[in-house]
Amino acid sequence: MGAGRPVAPSDPERAGPSDRGRVVVASNRGPVTFVPDEAGRPVPRRGVGGLVSALTGALQRTGGLWVAAAMSDLDRELAARGRLDVAELGWNFGVRSLVVDPETYDRFYNGVSNRVLWFLHHYLWDVPRAPSFGPQEREAWEAYRKVNRTFARALAEEGEAQGGPAYLVQDYHLSLVPAALRELRPGAPVAHFFHIPFADPTYVRLLPTALRRELLAGMLGADVLGFHTERWARNFLGCCEAEGIRVDRRRRAVSWQGREVRVRPYPLGADVEGLAAAADTPEARAALAELEAWRGEARLVLRVDRAELSKNILRGFLAFELFLRRYPEWRGRVRFLALLNPSRGDLEEYAAYVEQCLAVAERVNRELGSGGWRPLEVSLKDDFPRAVAAYQLYDVLLVNPVFDGMNLVAKEGPVLNRRDGVLVLSENAGAFEEVGRYAVRVNPFDVLETAEAIAAALAMDREERARRARALRRAVRRNPLERWVEAQLADLEDARRRG
Amino acid sequence: MGAGRPVAPSDPERAGPSDRGRVVVASNRGPVTFVPDEAGRPVPRRGVGGLVSALTGALQRTGGLWVAAAMSDLDRELAARGRLDVAELGWNFGVRSLVVDPETYDRFYNGVSNRVLWFLHHYLWDVPRAPSFGPQEREAWEAYRKVNRTFARALAEEGEAQGGPAYLVQDYHLSLVPAALRELRPGAPVAHFFHIPFADPTYVRLLPTALRRELLAGMLGADVLGFHTERWARNFLGCCEAEGIRVDRRRRAVSWQGREVRVRPYPLGADVEGLAAAADTPEARAALAELEAWRGEARLVLRVDRAELSKNILRGFLAFELFLRRYPEWRGRVRFLALLNPSRGDLEEYAAYVEQCLAVAERVNRELGSGGWRPLEVSLKDDFPRAVAAYQLYDVLLVNPVFDGMNLVAKEGPVLNRRDGVLVLSENAGAFEEVGRYAVRVNPFDVLETAEAIAAALAMDREERARRARALRRAVRRNPLERWVEAQLADLEDARRRG
Repeated sequence: MGAGRPVAPSDPERAGPSDRGRVVVASNRGPVTFVPDEAGRPVPRRGVGGLVSALTGALQRTGGLWVAAAMSDLDRELAARGRLDVAELGWNFGVRSLVVDPETYDRFYNGVSNRVLWFLHHYLWDVPRAPSFGPQEREAWEAYRKVNRTFARALAEEGEAQGGPAYLVQDYHLSLVPAALRELRPGAPVAHFFHIPFADPTYVRLLPTALRRELLAGMLGADVLGFHTERWARNFLGCCEAEGIRVDRRRRAVSWQGREVRVRPYPLGADVEGLAAAADTPEARAALAELEAWRGEARLVLRVDRAELSKNILRGFLAFELFLRRYPEWRGRVRFLALLNPSRGDLEEYAAYVEQCLAVAERVNRELGSGGWRPLEVSLKDDFPRAVAAYQLYDVLLVNPVFDGMNLVAKEGPVLNRRDGVLVLSENAGAFEEVGRYAVRVNPFDVLETAEAIAAALAMDREERARRARALRRAVRRNPLERWVEAQLADLEDARRRG
Repeated sequence: MGAGRPVAPSDPERAGPSDRGRVVVASNRGPVTFVPDEAGRPVPRRGVGGLVSALTGALQRTGGLWVAAAMSDLDRELAARGRLDVAELGWNFGVRSLVVDPETYDRFYNGVSNRVLWFLHHYLWDVPRAPSFGPQEREAWEAYRKVNRTFARALAEEGEAQGGPAYLVQDYHLSLVPAALRELRPGAPVAHFFHIPFADPTYVRLLPTALRRELLAGMLGADVLGFHTERWARNFLGCCEAEGIRVDRRRRAVSWQGREVRVRPYPLGADVEGLAAAADTPEARAALAELEAWRGEARLVLRVDRAELSKNILRGFLAFELFLRRYPEWRGRVRFLALLNPSRGDLEEYAAYVEQCLAVAERVNRELGSGGWRPLEVSLKDDFPRAVAAYQLYDVLLVNPVFDGMNLVAKEGPVLNRRDGVLVLSENAGAFEEVGRYAVRVNPFDVLETAEAIAAALAMDREERARRARALRRAVRRNPLERWVEAQLADLEDARRRG
């Protein structure tokens, strides 16, 4: 989610009173962090991204609370003093920050969430060698369990004050919260949403037996389990079946401890208004001018990603190289810009991967560049205004993750693009289910196909590009941001009514 | 399969005439290779293993033909002269060897079969980096297609001479044969058996789109598709569903091009008689005496594997190390013997893996060994008599593959063992479905659990060990070797009758 993006203008129609009860959101990272101003006074900064917009939008309508872990030292300090003061963001709901001791948090966050669960569900392990679960990994798991229980206790405590709210628990960091919360408040309506892919039944067996059962049991504490796509929901159902749990595939329901758990896709939309606002800031306008000058007459192939193993940056570069070798007529006439947001620098796997990507980029520039033409430009920097500017300028947007829960870049780029740019999209991105038919489809492991897709996108005639770009924008707009939360809340109410 | 194992004595009851029609078997590696004797005359040597026994046994009963690729230069030379002379093996069926030019064969065998399909179905890739499909991989795929067509043509040609036989096509090397054969002989009954795991639907997407569709279509040319376990069969059905192919999960059937394809588990049994015979050879008896002297008073933990990425040798060694660290009272009193059959030395991934395993073994010996006690002995050698001898002697048999289609070691060891040895078995070995309940179950990625399993197995009391060992032997004997082919042929006949 990050921080620092300007607040989107609130829409009075959306922000109106809701007929729903209050909502309590739980997530590892909260919607706000505090940074000191010149006088040292802590100033709240709203996080960026579609998810924060969707959840803060919902909380604005219903009132309630967002519970998250304190991140920075300043967050921790403020959190220790009580509820956070977010009045100046104009928020109609509270934010509670949980303080976890740094060592436990590191094991929970890096040791399990990022190093085990993220790797598991994105298929990132070098399986002959990793994962390997020994005593240290067990300790990390204890920390994961502990932080999840801390969340569950906080959510349960807040239940009374919020008048029996609906709980929206976010993501793989908090897989054990639903069951732990249900123990404390048996009747509470609980939805859990998994923002990343969910691995298939056989691959999930890379987790120790007891751990994977605990994870499934943890999630099955919810009434509603949400995923971005049918495919991830189906994988979850398959994993339950493989553990001998009763599943009704047709109704997408799991029978668990006398309850019925609904397992559904809720694809998250793009924050169309927030994007428009972000593109309209002075920073983004300045970045746009600068990028236009830099690009010159060349066509622009763009990627915007976290510097992340699952994003497939390496094969993307190799595909661009192969494209330049197979289509030498494009040399000097096209530039590849990779805007990579640094991520998880604490994990050595990430540092090694980024280094490998940079080495390939350098080789491509050395072997194929000439004169003033550097074919491949990599920027390793958290620079949202620049990304928003680049979205407007691309001719080809390359989104080729190996696997991705949703991938909002594939939706955000087309919303802002002004050049009828072509989306080259991995069939393994969750977004493919919604917008894949208007993109040039690639298998992310197929470097040759990806090279050919770049060539095809660049060679596509004007009408075809315009037709696809229009259709893309329409497809994105067909799924407004509010729908994601509303559909979950509606299913929660329905689940509650039926018992 | 390898070569060199003595021929099992034929059983007159089994070898009697069959009421079935003839059978034609196709596999990459044939049941026989030729080695020159002192005079330079080529002498046939029967391949080893349960599969060769099962298929030669069936062919003995029905008559027919085995079609395979020529392997050695001598094989190639003999094959070029026509049908192989296997009279001196006492075989009641022919063997035809196909000659493929070495470069094409290398691409087919190493380039696709071993490097792509084996890695795919055992989850062996380091996904952020591999696989990567470029022009070279496409060429290898062309070779794979070509060799599969060569097989299909040979099988079709032989059809007339064999009076309309039932075809039993073996394994992942020949996935495209069923469809290619059906084109040439539309009415022929064709079964295909997949001896390795079948990956889940999401993971199969590591293959380029067109390739994975071609593979599924190739296999769906069969009437019956066999796997060792329910789990692999279910994964195949899931992959079909994910490609939009109609699947009836309850009946385990796929609707394909107006036909119904049955997808069934046929677990391969152990060659109990062949094993007894192998243990009774002078070579095996000599190896037994030598191993007994070497072991002395120590308890023996054994593993017998190909030196193969999927066998999880590395984590097995790490688990043994962890066991010695957690249970120092066992130091000096237990030895780990790893009999590793060299495999696929042509692939750099294998060389690197074996080196890594040896380095760990050396470190364990250096750090934990003392005096005359070397805790971990690794033998990298194709030595079947020694394996057969070691089977008789183990106290603990460690079979911990990351994934394995079946794993016959888990069945063969218990049949020969004389010490009520305990089987420590990966939940991801196909054999687990049949014998898992009598083993100590481990998750192969869980080094701690594996270390504890070794400790538990060594500490298990005499009655419990005897009870489990008896049950294991009974479970293995409950599934006689003949059943595997007979069940496939029965299902083929049934499929044919129903049209």
